[in-house]
Amino acid sequence: MRIAVAGASGYVGGELLRLALGHPEVEVGALTAGDSAGSLLGAHQPHLTPLADRPIVATTVDALAGHDVVFLALPHGRSAELAARLPDDVLVVDCGADHRLRDAAAWARWYGGDHAGHWPYGLPELPGARDELRGSRRVAVPGCYPTTATLAALPAVAGGIVAPEISVVAFSGTSGAGRAAKAHLLGSEVMGSAAAYGVGGAHRHTPEIVQNLSGLGAGAVRVSFTPVLAPMPRGILAVVSAPLADPAIDAAEARRVYAKAYETEPFVHLLPEGVQPATKSVLGSNAVQIQVEVDADAGRLVATAVIDNLTKGTAGGAFQSVNVAVGLEETLGLPVAGLAP
Amino acid sequence: MRIAVAGASGYVGGELLRLALGHPEVEVGALTAGDSAGSLLGAHQPHLTPLADRPIVATTVDALAGHDVVFLALPHGRSAELAARLPDDVLVVDCGADHRLRDAAAWARWYGGDHAGHWPYGLPELPGARDELRGSRRVAVPGCYPTTATLAALPAVAGGIVAPEISVVAFSGTSGAGRAAKAHLLGSEVMGSAAAYGVGGAHRHTPEIVQNLSGLGAGAVRVSFTPVLAPMPRGILAVVSAPLADPAIDAAEARRVYAKAYETEPFVHLLPEGVQPATKSVLGSNAVQIQVEVDADAGRLVATAVIDNLTKGTAGGAFQSVNVAVGLEETLGLPVAGLAP
Amino acid sequence: MRIAVAGASGYVGGELLRLALGHPEVEVGALTAGDSAGSLLGAHQPHLTPLADRPIVATTVDALAGHDVVFLALPHGRSAELAARLPDDVLVVDCGADHRLRDAAAWARWYGGDHAGHWPYGLPELPGARDELRGSRRVAVPGCYPTTATLAALPAVAGGIVAPEISVVAFSGTSGAGRAAKAHLLGSEVMGSAAAYGVGGAHRHTPEIVQNLSGLGAGAVRVSFTPVLAPMPRGILAVVSAPLADPAIDAAEARRVYAKAYETEPFVHLLPEGVQPATKSVLGSNAVQIQVEVDADAGRLVATAVIDNLTKGTAGGAFQSVNVAVGLEETLGLPVAGLAP
Amino acid sequence: MRIAVAGASGYVGGELLRLALGHPEVEVGALTAGDSAGSLLGAHQPHLTPLADRPIVATTVDALAGHDVVFLALPHGRSAELAARLPDDVLVVDCGADHRLRDAAAWARWYGGDHAGHWPYGLPELPGARDELRGSRRVAVPGCYPTTATLAALPAVAGGIVAPEISVVAFSGTSGAGRAAKAHLLGSEVMGSAAAYGVGGAHRHTPEIVQNLSGLGAGAVRVSFTPVLAPMPRGILAVVSAPLADPAIDAAEARRVYAKAYETEPFVHLLPEGVQPATKSVLGSNAVQIQVEVDADAGRLVATAVIDNLTKGTAGGAFQSVNVAVGLEETLGLPVAGLAP
Repeated sequence: MRIAVAGASGYVGGELLRLALGHPEVEVGALTAGDSAGSLLGAHQPHLTPLADRPIVATTVDALAGHDVVFLALPHGRSAELAARLPDDVLVVDCGADHRLRDAAAWARWYGGDHAGHWPYGLPELPGARDELRGSRRVAVPGCYPTTATLAALPAVAGGIVAPEISVVAFSGTSGAGRAAKAHLLGSEVMGSAAAYGVGGAHRHTPEIVQNLSGLGAGAVRVSFTPVLAPMPRGILAVVSAPLADPAIDAAEARRVYAKAYETEPFVHLLPEGVQPATKSVLGSNAVQIQVEVDADAGRLVATAVIDNLTKGTAGGAFQSVNVAVGLEETLGLPVAGLAP
Repeated sequence: MRIAVAGASGYVGGELLRLALGHPEVEVGALTAGDSAGSLLGAHQPHLTPLADRPIVATTVDALAGHDVVFLALPHGRSAELAARLPDDVLVVDCGADHRLRDAAAWARWYGGDHAGHWPYGLPELPGARDELRGSRRVAVPGCYPTTATLAALPAVAGGIVAPEISVVAFSGTSGAGRAAKAHLLGSEVMGSAAAYGVGGAHRHTPEIVQNLSGLGAGAVRVSFTPVLAPMPRGILAVVSAPLADPAIDAAEARRVYAKAYETEPFVHLLPEGVQPATKSVLGSNAVQIQVEVDADAGRLVATAVIDNLTKGTAGGAFQSVNVAVGLEETLGLPVAGLAP
Repeated sequence: MRIAVAGASGYVGGELLRLALGHPEVEVGALTAGDSAGSLLGAHQPHLTPLADRPIVATTVDALAGHDVVFLALPHGRSAELAARLPDDVLVVDCGADHRLRDAAAWARWYGGDHAGHWPYGLPELPGARDELRGSRRVAVPGCYPTTATLAALPAVAGGIVAPEISVVAFSGTSGAGRAAKAHLLGSEVMGSAAAYGVGGAHRHTPEIVQNLSGLGAGAVRVSFTPVLAPMPRGILAVVSAPLADPAIDAAEARRVYAKAYETEPFVHLLPEGVQPATKSVLGSNAVQIQVEVDADAGRLVATAVIDNLTKGTAGGAFQSVNVAVGLEETLGLPVAGLAP
Repeated sequence: MRIAVAGASGYVGGELLRLALGHPEVEVGALTAGDSAGSLLGAHQPHLTPLADRPIVATTVDALAGHDVVFLALPHGRSAELAARLPDDVLVVDCGADHRLRDAAAWARWYGGDHAGHWPYGLPELPGARDELRGSRRVAVPGCYPTTATLAALPAVAGGIVAPEISVVAFSGTSGAGRAAKAHLLGSEVMGSAAAYGVGGAHRHTPEIVQNLSGLGAGAVRVSFTPVLAPMPRGILAVVSAPLADPAIDAAEARRVYAKAYETEPFVHLLPEGVQPATKSVLGSNAVQIQVEVDADAGRLVATAVIDNLTKGTAGGAFQSVNVAVGLEETLGLPVAGLAP
């Protein structure tokens, strides 16, 4: 597969290319960007030594032509317009939000403007998703928070062991906020500090989590989502809790439900009893580590999940979906060991 | 006031001494410790330059005699025994857990062993606490998580605007885990990583939060508490949420309730609308910064609060309570500006 | 003293105000800035709770009028012009570089443009500096690297125990680069990473270090200076080395020279033998911690020094010099204990 | 190749196994350790998901028997004794210091005890090293600091463009100090702080750097080495400087010498002019990034180099040497792209 990456100078673009270098079926083709066009990739992604001398060109339909797969790692709202002009037989993978939401009204409320429509959703672990992805020429890569929260809550919601009132507090590394220079994201500001944002249900990933969890056949759910900016460059830890559907449900039963739900999933690992997942364990990998507990006093199930926001949360999830879409082994070329310590 | 500090070589001991240096009514007397006895303070607290040459002696009743205030910064279970042997007319301030819980059964369940009894609780912002503290010769300093969670939830619970089902997810800097050398607290492990612990209601601070919030006259509450170890040395951010008592409650009303609750509190600051608290803003200070939002879609109130776990969360809260106990200005000698960036 | 701060929304401005809050003789007057004019201080310095509601106005001569002390925390090149229009009887403290270099040719080479002249240099520990500062109405605050490197090297150079070939490698927290949003200073970039910059003698602080060390009466020195951006918000560690003037000089002699040089300095602390200074020990304080060793195999003296770049390195050094200039106790209002851990 | 790893629960052991998972010719055999024997690998290396259920057994000759390659990731002094009892036809790779130094007197001075002798030195970039490694059944993996410092200085020393007085200041992530629980390595201590150690030529890597640089045919060198503990988990940045051999040597000439020295090296990359290496660019990779500058004012050459201390600095360098020893492609299975941001 010859791939093109639009947005090659950003964090998602860099991660797509890092993974491309390790994927045995991928050849790196055009690298495009906006302001960075005209420079070499090495000036923006000094960690990608083998591609240091590759030129970045302007993002145009022509530049992206002639590739088997085109990854769009662009700001929200930019990919829909571009994608509409790409040929139908090219596999287009949108790492932005433009094609994630099924509901036009939800799109209008949360993003505004015209709804570009819904593409097969690139979270293969979601029931039905693999079927939609197989053979598709379009993939909407999920948001990084929705990937984490959905995978943490999915077995509990689908298994009916919690009431449909999901609380998600998720701690994210700063790379989730992208590479644009903003004062509140300076190292001086974020090192040694933690702060929530988008509190009170204001974050745009909320409707995506609702969509995922409400589509599991167990009825509509409500989601309270609070993201927290954490002093680390990568990684998301989601703490997901919900009232138990029945006070008799204990940790052993919750564990059985989770183990069953993920027993055949290649990237999702339910940790041994008593072991909590740490974001460092999945850095740079496509793995998801999960744990589930029951708090009998509070009458709640508490699940925790970690991913690397740029790998499984974006670029890794994208390649996983591409593997499914084109009929390769789903795990091909994707790292499963994290970089620790 | 001449003070003695038992446990002077640990993090809480160090913070007590840092604050003592800035308190106009305090003279530093005996410094005691266990394994560190026989060395100089400078070997353990190199940041306390003015006290570098002060010797550390063994923690004994004799060493602690002759002071107006004795701070106990000892491992849980150690302070009760020692405190029982100190004179009644000395102000004894226990920074450990031994005298926090009112309920002997709760003590037995969470800590085990005999209940040493309950002392006036050193959270002056809690209704009734100042009255108990005034003139007292014993103070039980709250846990750092309970301080944060209680102050975040207090107005909502006391004001009856939420149902009594409180969810707390709190991110803490590593100093909360103390100074004992443990492999999972190595810098190599914690930098760049986040992980929950004590999940499912297993953390010992849970009953303390329950006690605080159930004592507000609004009935018993249930608390789901999930602590997260964050890659920063200091600071706690608590994200507290609960179902709205009435779906008609909006952000403006929640804000009025919080503003009213804290309008005369010298250390608690409700931030301007739309501004979320960051732990860095209160580093080294006794300030608490709080925000409250309402998520109408999810039907929940979401409050966030930050403190420095070692200052307002322990040593600063201790001095604040001492000020109240001995009749000094409550804010005397306590920093209100944080150290940022 | 009523003070005004020009540049109140930046990191140096924030630190000046943090220290002002703790200085018993200081009243905070006008706060001015450029782009931030028209907003409240709390929007920029959320850690300065007591000043949160103070308005920021545009930086003009009128706004700065009527104060006893005017601190200029402005980009290089901006302060000279403004200072020229301030009355002679006001104490003007320039935290920028405009008035540090004595030599107009050096100014032209390193900064370009007209040389605004040289003001009394605000490093009281430098021989002769206190005499120049006393009674002065103008103070040039040193750069943060020059403060660290100069204090580390001063006894060795002045004492003639090293050859005049000084090598300085200094690690700085990111706040030294200021608050302007730049992509390479994003938390995502700097956390977990270290990189040198200005290598090969290109950093503008080089001529200032040369000036300081060449003015000690021991002849001209050459300085090789390499700054490194470290993944921490604050603090500078300088590693300074030079060939021994005589191979017979041992660690004990070097230690005697350093102890003698600083025996009466209130802020400079030579650490006990075998103890190396850590930046954390001086965070938020005006203290300097120093150690000196001799490497007999390599024939070099190696001195290490730490400061907080924003405190002793800028704002604290500024207040120390103000205290000297106006005849107050030199240490008045300046923190000597660091914030650790 | 079937490999065994002695010391599988430590940081070096973990990195060896992470790389083994990505090496197409490697099969992971026995995992051994000391105190961790009897547990599963997942309890110690939660990032190595595919090996989570592999048991760790006690480190014995029997446990290590039957493998093609045995990696020893043991504390200094432990590997020599064990290695002496392993068969001659097994490739034994010592990641510790026991077989690095040629000179028995240097061994006695720096490490004490009997000298176990010298093995082929696993730094293929060192002139002559590949010849020694090819076909060898024993490999001494270099120290992480010596790898960085040697590669930064090598072209300048071998090319005769500097005087033989090398100054090295190197900034290292904390994983270099290993996984043993020590209070000064706690996250609370190291986050936000930098401190030198082993100052004055006291670090044991000094004689190894001297050995490497004195063996280049340009005469004996003296080395002043100062390591600094940096607030990051991985990575080393070395700043190496030395007096120019001739004041006429300029940056262009230095650059030519460096470019020539490394033109055929697969892992060493001289960066474009004006670009300084950052440790993050090589995280998890076997790459070395280097820059060289000349400071004409100071009359010194200044070279900077970054590696990942656990990858190229230990485990990656070990596999690179194994590849050479057994006749595989030198780069086989070794990552060349770093993990950033």
